Amino acid sequence: MRLQDCNPAMPAFKVTLAYDGTDYVGWQRQAKGVSIQGLLEDALKDLDGGDVAVAGAGRTDAGVHALGQVATFSIERDLDGATLVRALNVRLPPAVRLLAAEHAAEGFHARFSAKSKTYRYRIWNHDVLSPFERRYAWYVPMPLDVSRMARAARVLEGRHDFASFQGTGATAATTDRVVFSSSVRMDGGAVVYEIAGDGFLRHMVRAIVGSLVDIGRGHQPAEWMAEVLASRNRTRAGQTAPAAGLFLVGVEYDSLAANR
Amino acid sequence: MRLQDCNPAMPAFKVTLAYDGTDYVGWQRQAKGVSIQGLLEDALKDLDGGDVAVAGAGRTDAGVHALGQVATFSIERDLDGATLVRALNVRLPPAVRLLAAEHAAEGFHARFSAKSKTYRYRIWNHDVLSPFERRYAWYVPMPLDVSRMARAARVLEGRHDFASFQGTGATAATTDRVVFSSSVRMDGGAVVYEIAGDGFLRHMVRAIVGSLVDIGRGHQPAEWMAEVLASRNRTRAGQTAPAAGLFLVGVEYDSLAANR
Repeated sequence: MRLQDCNPAMPAFKVTLAYDGTDYVGWQRQAKGVSIQGLLEDALKDLDGGDVAVAGAGRTDAGVHALGQVATFSIERDLDGATLVRALNVRLPPAVRLLAAEHAAEGFHARFSAKSKTYRYRIWNHDVLSPFERRYAWYVPMPLDVSRMARAARVLEGRHDFASFQGTGATAATTDRVVFSSSVRMDGGAVVYEIAGDGFLRHMVRAIVGSLVDIGRGHQPAEWMAEVLASRNRTRAGQTAPAAGLFLVGVEYDSLAANR
Repeated sequence: MRLQDCNPAMPAFKVTLAYDGTDYVGWQRQAKGVSIQGLLEDALKDLDGGDVAVAGAGRTDAGVHALGQVATFSIERDLDGATLVRALNVRLPPAVRLLAAEHAAEGFHARFSAKSKTYRYRIWNHDVLSPFERRYAWYVPMPLDVSRMARAARVLEGRHDFASFQGTGATAATTDRVVFSSSVRMDGGAVVYEIAGDGFLRHMVRAIVGSLVDIGRGHQPAEWMAEVLASRNRTRAGQTAPAAGLFLVGVEYDSLAANR
């Protein structure tokens, strides 16, 4: 246990960050490879002098990106938000950027205080993979029926047991989750799937996208999504879509909880 | 002189390609480093057996990107366009993609037949440089007056001597060019400059953008652009903006000239 865990006088911060996950092992610090959490903890150690533990709202996998990841930590020094943003950005590679920082209310935690998270998945559905999409989309050159995918996506809204979409080996205490919205649209030449929910199982979004693409390609009817969901059986769903297409868009909190 | 230059029976092709120029020395083959032209010529040699000379419409510099570069060449084998696209794309790195290929009319040349080229320059005008923009925009965190920049940009439309915006050391026979459109707009959080013209001097777009940013920052009034243009003196214009923000968007031809 670190000092910060038992000393409420240490200033706590909530930071929002964006990263291009292509060259990293994911959010979480690993035995091998460079993680976003590790980069941030190293930057904080350099800034603050001691070891700092950073908690992230979503544990994005290797190759997954973030437009608005949220993290919390406590440090010895008190700084205003804008100064902390600049001080950390000069210590981070350009692929990882703090967008904002603010003081956090007592007890606020990036992950446990989160009410909703939003993920976006981009599919490049053209004959040729654009050089500008190769790090940020799944390349699916086969024709996709986007309106059929959109119909299937809506089936997932509400409270459900999402065991069918949990990566093998994951051990969540419960596989019940509430999905607030689940939709498919076209955006600038990409097929975009967006999902907001109160929590996500390991590889859940990517397993949903793999299933949606099976439906879009005509291998399965739109109604199949409800069957897969009801089966609570991972082997019934589609493949886990590649990491490159996935973005953690943002994390929502009760407005009172975030600021002290 | 190669056989293709004097044998009209060899099939000639017009290809359109996109590339992420970040990791390359530019379009043109150089003594050192990897060029887009070199990659394409190597792919064609692998496909066709002999040396193939490729002519590009615009000689993009190191780090400059293309959404629609056009190139012409003649090869021994006759292939349909879709087959040529696939055959070359499997021989090119993912950062370089053929988008289309078609047979070219006799005498058609990517550069000399071009009637108009369009370039786009992206400026990221926010406090923090997004990780997703670092390869594709110039990071200008200082406030920019975009409407003042737009007013200055329009001054360049028409036939003018653009000597003020020609990179030092360049030796074009004439520095007169016709600019069909020159405009500034906001697009998805970026300040975007777009220019279409019958030809461009070396570093011309980037020197114009450097001057526009001087105006946007308030270092110069919008009227200064006309003074710089009239001076025909490179030292009067702004700095050459970084390569990363520049895209060759497309090349236009008379519709009859392109196809046989």
